[in-house]
Amino acid sequence: MKILALSGSLRAASINSALLRAMTRLAPSGMEIVIFTGLGELPLFNPDLEADIPRQVAVLHDAVANADAMLIASPEYAHGVTGTIKNALDWLVSFEPFVGMHVAVLNASPRARHADAALRETLRTMSAVIVEEASIALPLVGSGLSENGILDSTDIAPAIVSALRALQDALMPHPAGSHPSFPTT
Amino acid sequence: MKILALSGSLRAASINSALLRAMTRLAPSGMEIVIFTGLGELPLFNPDLEADIPRQVAVLHDAVANADAMLIASPEYAHGVTGTIKNALDWLVSFEPFVGMHVAVLNASPRARHADAALRETLRTMSAVIVEEASIALPLVGSGLSENGILDSTDIAPAIVSALRALQDALMPHPAGSHPSFPTT
Repeated sequence: MKILALSGSLRAASINSALLRAMTRLAPSGMEIVIFTGLGELPLFNPDLEADIPRQVAVLHDAVANADAMLIASPEYAHGVTGTIKNALDWLVSFEPFVGMHVAVLNASPRARHADAALRETLRTMSAVIVEEASIALPLVGSGLSENGILDSTDIAPAIVSALRALQDALMPHPAGSHPSFPTT
Repeated sequence: MKILALSGSLRAASINSALLRAMTRLAPSGMEIVIFTGLGELPLFNPDLEADIPRQVAVLHDAVANADAMLIASPEYAHGVTGTIKNALDWLVSFEPFVGMHVAVLNASPRARHADAALRETLRTMSAVIVEEASIALPLVGSGLSENGILDSTDIAPAIVSALRALQDALMPHPAGSHPSFPTT
């Protein structure tokens, strides 16, 4: 199970990026999380370029096409999504393999509601499937926690593990008869 | 009176860009509208770069610092702002001359409400002053109108002229006594 992770911040010390790095190390057995590191090199979206896709966009497209699901962790800038994450999504709007993609939306700042809501609205409009059980808000902004601090935390690390298990669960094919059903007797 | 105009679309045939080009030609006497053409060359916002501002960002900053007001016309992509316009605004969040900037928000697609609302929320959060009388929605998307078609239109061109006069009015220093006041007798 391959999971592609996007951070909406390009800052080296970004807590969203640290969260995703911690998640790569907390992935349950059978799940591999890879962080896409090229969002900052994407050109700004221009529909005129779609006929001859720029190289960096092709790299993103390949990574998305090979992913079973995605994680998105992105900060809020001025009560909005970051230009960086929206630009990446703009390049995926007409990219067919993104349709039906399972996405966990992570929010490192539970009080930042505008960007989280806008990101979810855009993902739904793009026909992604938001996996709610795996989409968690964690009080990381202002916590001063590093990647290792997240891993060592006695409340945050277990919450991440639960979220990743929920994502894994959502992607698993359910064997016949395992679905909840009405009692027949 | 210098007005800086930003289009949120990089597409050559963008109706938002055509609208702004038409506006440069409909500007009332005393108002000069200049379209900023470098949004597509801005790097994606990275706070780590703010210590040594990239050249294209410095060009944007100079243009903003020299403007008396701004026009923003931007499409909606997947129920959100475009990455291009948000990236430009991300570079202006910490730029002091933008505080208190008078901005007219133009919407070329009255049914596209998500991006318009998100853009306004971000502008308010950045302490811009949205000039409501100059912020108009025009049914341009799907109209097939070109820049010249906009200029020749018997309903749209007059609406643009009214909006620009309202913007001019909002920027004019009001002479003493011209403000509405309570009757004193």
